[in-house]
Amino acid sequence: MAQVNVPVVRNILQANERIAAENRKRFDEAGMYVINVMSSPGAGKTSLLEKTIDGLAGRVKMAVIEGDIQSSYDAERIQRKGVQAVQINTDGGCHLDGNMIQIAMDSLDLDGVDLLIIENVGNLVCPAEFNLGEHDKVMILSVAEGDDKPLKYPLMFQLSSVLLVNKIDLLPYIDCSIETIRERAHQLNGTQQVFEVSCRTGEGLEAWFAWLENKIREQRKARAE
Amino acid sequence: MAQVNVPVVRNILQANERIAAENRKRFDEAGMYVINVMSSPGAGKTSLLEKTIDGLAGRVKMAVIEGDIQSSYDAERIQRKGVQAVQINTDGGCHLDGNMIQIAMDSLDLDGVDLLIIENVGNLVCPAEFNLGEHDKVMILSVAEGDDKPLKYPLMFQLSSVLLVNKIDLLPYIDCSIETIRERAHQLNGTQQVFEVSCRTGEGLEAWFAWLENKIREQRKARAE
Repeated sequence: MAQVNVPVVRNILQANERIAAENRKRFDEAGMYVINVMSSPGAGKTSLLEKTIDGLAGRVKMAVIEGDIQSSYDAERIQRKGVQAVQINTDGGCHLDGNMIQIAMDSLDLDGVDLLIIENVGNLVCPAEFNLGEHDKVMILSVAEGDDKPLKYPLMFQLSSVLLVNKIDLLPYIDCSIETIRERAHQLNGTQQVFEVSCRTGEGLEAWFAWLENKIREQRKARAE
Repeated sequence: MAQVNVPVVRNILQANERIAAENRKRFDEAGMYVINVMSSPGAGKTSLLEKTIDGLAGRVKMAVIEGDIQSSYDAERIQRKGVQAVQINTDGGCHLDGNMIQIAMDSLDLDGVDLLIIENVGNLVCPAEFNLGEHDKVMILSVAEGDDKPLKYPLMFQLSSVLLVNKIDLLPYIDCSIETIRERAHQLNGTQQVFEVSCRTGEGLEAWFAWLENKIREQRKARAE
């Protein structure tokens, strides 16, 4: 069965790479910085988006594409923050792909937008395999998931420029070592930027905001040149 | 792209159903009760297995099939408990399928085994779509993932006979309502058995053990008849 499936999967991935490259061109022409936020279910993707909207308010114009199998719950959370958001429902699909992003972009007014955040389906496996044209993949790991996750889901760690270790306020109540996460993630990806944060208490988020604003500034500069 | 993929996916699912039915026949002939344990990464599948091994020690003969993308970390945890375990590495694959179980069974001595536990890849989406021949699908939801999960990952809730709501010792420190989880899960699956547990403190596990032993007893009875 695996053999039968391989060529099909390869064709799908190649088609996706072509579409992702088109998306990337469009992002760059607009001078818009784009991140693809991925994690397990419930690691805090939407909470991070809410905090990031608050943290960059008044300085950065944002838009959000929400990916979920079903429901528009997350897009509604973002819209309540006054940021335009469109919801993709994959209807059973376990990841977003480049084509979905192309369609979703048509529902957004991207004029003057500095930062587009794509929130992927909650899944630590499949979303890593599909480029969307984003400039950076950003992953979140909740400390409640444990420090063995880099061993078991290596691709996501290898491909993500940023690792946000979230829910650090829970550390006193669980068996999880941030040092172990850092060591194991570093073995997979030596250039990965790691931030220890709590979206609940706000701890550590300023460093993430600063990293993000620097990236947005660089992309704005490229547009101006 | 989705259209191109649909017939291939359908064929794969049909082939899998056929193999799953063969597995089921083999399980029943051996009088062995089999569960397929699924959850997001880090919700506590392996911890539940460790606790279940301790809880049923001396009364039930068990074997375990571990599914992970990479590493043999989980099978080693089980073997340290003195239970035979075989590790499947899916090498990137996001779920187990019937064929993998058939191959893994050949590495186990299943003579006299009452309970076979299959621990699936950590993923709240794809594993639900592939029957392995199991008698019951058992899902774990960590309260740290939040009470909106039934809205966003409905298929897993619809198909699982049992929902173990784990890590209830964290409830004082997070924003999550067990009542909301129960209500939303019930809307998707009115016959689902729900257990509130903490694998860390042991709270609530006795009810789960009793449920499991009852199932094993029924299957033994069927074998004897």
